[in-house]
Amino acid sequence: MPVETTRPRTIWRSRDAETVEIIDQTRLPAALETRRLESLEDAAAAIRTMQVRGAPLIGVTAAYGVAMGLAESNDDATLAHVIRTLAATRPTGRDLFTVLDKMRLTLVGFPPAERKAAAWRMADELAEECVNKCRAIGRNGAELIERIANTKKEGPVNVLTHCNAGWLACVEWGTALAPVYVAAERGCNVHVWVGETRPRNQGAALTCWELKAGGIPHTLTVDSATGHLMSEGRVDIAITGADRVLRDGTVCNKIGTYMKALAAHDNGVPFYVAIPESTVDRVTHPGSGAIPIEERDEEEVLRASGRNASGSHASIAVAPPATTAFNPAFDVTPPNLVRGLVTEAGVGPATEDGIVALFGPACEGQPE
Amino acid sequence: MPVETTRPRTIWRSRDAETVEIIDQTRLPAALETRRLESLEDAAAAIRTMQVRGAPLIGVTAAYGVAMGLAESNDDATLAHVIRTLAATRPTGRDLFTVLDKMRLTLVGFPPAERKAAAWRMADELAEECVNKCRAIGRNGAELIERIANTKKEGPVNVLTHCNAGWLACVEWGTALAPVYVAAERGCNVHVWVGETRPRNQGAALTCWELKAGGIPHTLTVDSATGHLMSEGRVDIAITGADRVLRDGTVCNKIGTYMKALAAHDNGVPFYVAIPESTVDRVTHPGSGAIPIEERDEEEVLRASGRNASGSHASIAVAPPATTAFNPAFDVTPPNLVRGLVTEAGVGPATEDGIVALFGPACEGQPE
Repeated sequence: MPVETTRPRTIWRSRDAETVEIIDQTRLPAALETRRLESLEDAAAAIRTMQVRGAPLIGVTAAYGVAMGLAESNDDATLAHVIRTLAATRPTGRDLFTVLDKMRLTLVGFPPAERKAAAWRMADELAEECVNKCRAIGRNGAELIERIANTKKEGPVNVLTHCNAGWLACVEWGTALAPVYVAAERGCNVHVWVGETRPRNQGAALTCWELKAGGIPHTLTVDSATGHLMSEGRVDIAITGADRVLRDGTVCNKIGTYMKALAAHDNGVPFYVAIPESTVDRVTHPGSGAIPIEERDEEEVLRASGRNASGSHASIAVAPPATTAFNPAFDVTPPNLVRGLVTEAGVGPATEDGIVALFGPACEGQPE
Repeated sequence: MPVETTRPRTIWRSRDAETVEIIDQTRLPAALETRRLESLEDAAAAIRTMQVRGAPLIGVTAAYGVAMGLAESNDDATLAHVIRTLAATRPTGRDLFTVLDKMRLTLVGFPPAERKAAAWRMADELAEECVNKCRAIGRNGAELIERIANTKKEGPVNVLTHCNAGWLACVEWGTALAPVYVAAERGCNVHVWVGETRPRNQGAALTCWELKAGGIPHTLTVDSATGHLMSEGRVDIAITGADRVLRDGTVCNKIGTYMKALAAHDNGVPFYVAIPESTVDRVTHPGSGAIPIEERDEEEVLRASGRNASGSHASIAVAPPATTAFNPAFDVTPPNLVRGLVTEAGVGPATEDGIVALFGPACEGQPE
């Protein structure tokens, strides 16, 4: 784990070998356990089973997966197989493809014998870059929170978030929660409303856990209660992460984000989406059905997971036997519901012009 | 249980005594168990612990509670105590107060010695009235579903509902689900999307159970996925019940209704609220904070309940220890999001004029 901060990282190089270690997020909040990933297959499985999750962290894990996948052979066919394997893990989050595109385009330019070392170097750089970008997102977003704090007569700034877009979704700091951490470090009085984020409850299990570890006051609610909170004037600003943002500002994020954005819009609550550039998809043409929405196992809906009385992991059925369920993992929020994007390059509108102003025109890593 | 239909009732007179029996809804879907209520205290406890729930059923149970409360004494003080005890069980649902007002006003007009018999007669009448009104709601609402069926080229009419406003929430038929049952009986191809309705999961536990028993095709989703379903064009009509409707058409219903109404509005999905007249509150002046919103134990949010591997009732913790939660049980949907009210008197707009057209001006049971 890293030494320069008190917060652990979610992924780090092993000391003694060309492997990486991760926090196994399927074990939180019951236990903080680490796993060693030793191969391409380990990395792909960790992404698929959501031991690592969150668009930025999936991207960084995939980068290390490429490096580990070149351990025994390094020719073009191996590289293609490695990229293909990792690209098949999860369909919706953009960072995975941003990273794989970048690594593929760079590594094919190296002689095969140098590819493995180059891949490790790139993966390390991407991990550091992720930390730095998240810190910058935090600084830029903290200004939004501080501006609200300056206009409030009393009480904390109430930030609503959804799912987990904290440091557990990245390498450090986080996207949506980075502004909260930075504002709190600067002495701002912040309180976070956490939507539990059924079906996998990453809000309850991960966001509550990391906010508690970070000493940030927070309160859990069911997802359905967040609209009521906003209509009662109990939310000052909503900040979520995103799995993919299209070039017109369309936001694809964890299922339920769209309904929270609607409620924010209806109540005049500013709704921000915090992302690094790697989450922006400049290629996909915006429009109905443009983004592949992952549909996950219906068991996630038919059951709920948590801890039993003895603290062990337990799963219970919430529906009658033989019930059928539908389980889309993400939804799409139109840009008109988004007050702005909070990025490492600053805060800007969720529009095509806004994205070009933040990041410039589409770069070579994302060809049309 | 009743003989004239295949569906059991939720509450019925015992054969041999001045007591009633209920289906204990806290045991569903694991077990269909009945409980005998023998006293005012039993009735109040059944409402408070949600063995019976749903605004119309709470009203009918309270009526029987009044009758049982007059078993040993029948003077004005006893009557006042009985009414007060039942009125203190749950604050938000309107039918409870409609019924208690009606019984109080009627029973004080009887000589004390005749009050008990009059109360049993009134309770029986209210139960029958509830069945008849729900059947009429079903007939009126079925026309909405059939109209959609006539315009659809293929597939079922997809009805979205929230929580449980089926026969389990009433005595028979239901409010929101009555139109589904009637349409299906008339041969209409109907499919119901059921939002699970955290934190108590009445959608998953009760609505799925009763739709399965009724042979109605249905699919469970998390509450957060219902907006996505609507944006994908997979919902033709949304119908919910209500715990209270104000005279301007403001709807107070189970937490999460407001966000579903917002998503329906954003996607042009007609959003209807099915209620009997007893749910309409002509007294409370519409406005922010007008309706007392019940806040329930945070444990409902911090935990989830269901069945373990052996089929027994089990509860698990979904959040880290020492997490704080906020648990409002209802929210408020403004009338502009409601396409119409489906009532025993017909379908009409959710406006003051619409309500007067359906039910006439405020009656003496609900004085200003």
